[in-house]
Amino acid sequence: MLKLILGNKAYSSWSLRGWLAAKHSALPFEEVVVPLYDAEWEARREGDEFAPSSGKVPILWDGDDVVVWDSLAIVEYLNEKTGDDRYWPTDPAARAMARSMAAEMHSSYAALRKKHPMNVRQVYEPKRPDDDVIADLTRIMELWAQARARFGGEGDFLFGPWSAADMMFAPVVTRIVTYSLPIARFAGGYIQSVIAHPHMQDWIAGAQEEDWVLEQYEREPATA
Amino acid sequence: MLKLILGNKAYSSWSLRGWLAAKHSALPFEEVVVPLYDAEWEARREGDEFAPSSGKVPILWDGDDVVVWDSLAIVEYLNEKTGDDRYWPTDPAARAMARSMAAEMHSSYAALRKKHPMNVRQVYEPKRPDDDVIADLTRIMELWAQARARFGGEGDFLFGPWSAADMMFAPVVTRIVTYSLPIARFAGGYIQSVIAHPHMQDWIAGAQEEDWVLEQYEREPATA
Repeated sequence: MLKLILGNKAYSSWSLRGWLAAKHSALPFEEVVVPLYDAEWEARREGDEFAPSSGKVPILWDGDDVVVWDSLAIVEYLNEKTGDDRYWPTDPAARAMARSMAAEMHSSYAALRKKHPMNVRQVYEPKRPDDDVIADLTRIMELWAQARARFGGEGDFLFGPWSAADMMFAPVVTRIVTYSLPIARFAGGYIQSVIAHPHMQDWIAGAQEEDWVLEQYEREPATA
Repeated sequence: MLKLILGNKAYSSWSLRGWLAAKHSALPFEEVVVPLYDAEWEARREGDEFAPSSGKVPILWDGDDVVVWDSLAIVEYLNEKTGDDRYWPTDPAARAMARSMAAEMHSSYAALRKKHPMNVRQVYEPKRPDDDVIADLTRIMELWAQARARFGGEGDFLFGPWSAADMMFAPVVTRIVTYSLPIARFAGGYIQSVIAHPHMQDWIAGAQEEDWVLEQYEREPATA
């Protein structure tokens, strides 16, 4: 049995990626939400449940012996476990691009991630992002445009059907919506498709049901 | 035919990871070194050779159509191309841990990476690293110790034989040596094994032959 340890659905962007990967497997999994940064978090992150992660989430356990503690590694693990045909495009050029984009998401866009933390429960007052955030968004638009143009075909997502590349960029999509970040015109339809995906709707509904509030994620609410 | 675009062997830690992955494939590949940050770099990074990367290296081309522009994605690409048995351990628990460690290397240890840039040609005066660098090293020692204890067996490397996990941590190993960074006692043998690996020796020899010098990587040489 799979067990997935997560942070708050409202705030934990990497948990969202790991959870989308788990849902996409169509395998049953137990879901354990540990609210970030409170006393319980501090106690539990020292325990066996979190080892050998560095106290970060998400963490996927498969039985008592197999543990995967990074969202991109969770994607690759579940891809192999489910027969290697559910997460990445099969065309070699598309597959190479999807993996490169997922890896770039994994290591980049520090300005966007730091200055616009994910909060799927809150809509913020629109304001012009800093230049370094604009640069991150410009690069992301370039990648999305290339993926859609070369490999999107008739599908709604980056490489046609829902794939690991979409899962990795999903928390960028929620930030674009909740912070009203500027995007290229073509991206509007893609963003709507991501938000409307049943797994995304399920996650957002779960976040609405949480009653934890962390001040550092709740700044600057829209006054409108 | 594979073509791998790299930065300077002396300085480009991510290029080292991609190159080690390419060497490990045992496939022939053309190697193109573009010296970082000089006029030629600025000109070439705008060209087709670099697209659709963000101007970063390494970039692996497989023919004219398939391009992979991130070191971890290059590992996964070559792993699949070579039959899925050369890069990661086959035991599921070991494989999950190796992938998690490689992903953690890919997204973490900012202090170590920023404050101790790789330079395989230069030995620096030993001095006590900053606390955030010590914290990165402590975490890395913890991971190496767990991997070696659980899965190292009789082999010289993290998971026994040379694997993608070792490739990802190779530029940490060179930093430990060139900056005399503090390590746990058990790690000494592992570090020697990595440095002695024929691919590492080949890379370091290549770096010695380069005649480009970038000031920002050449600070604080040892005076002894």
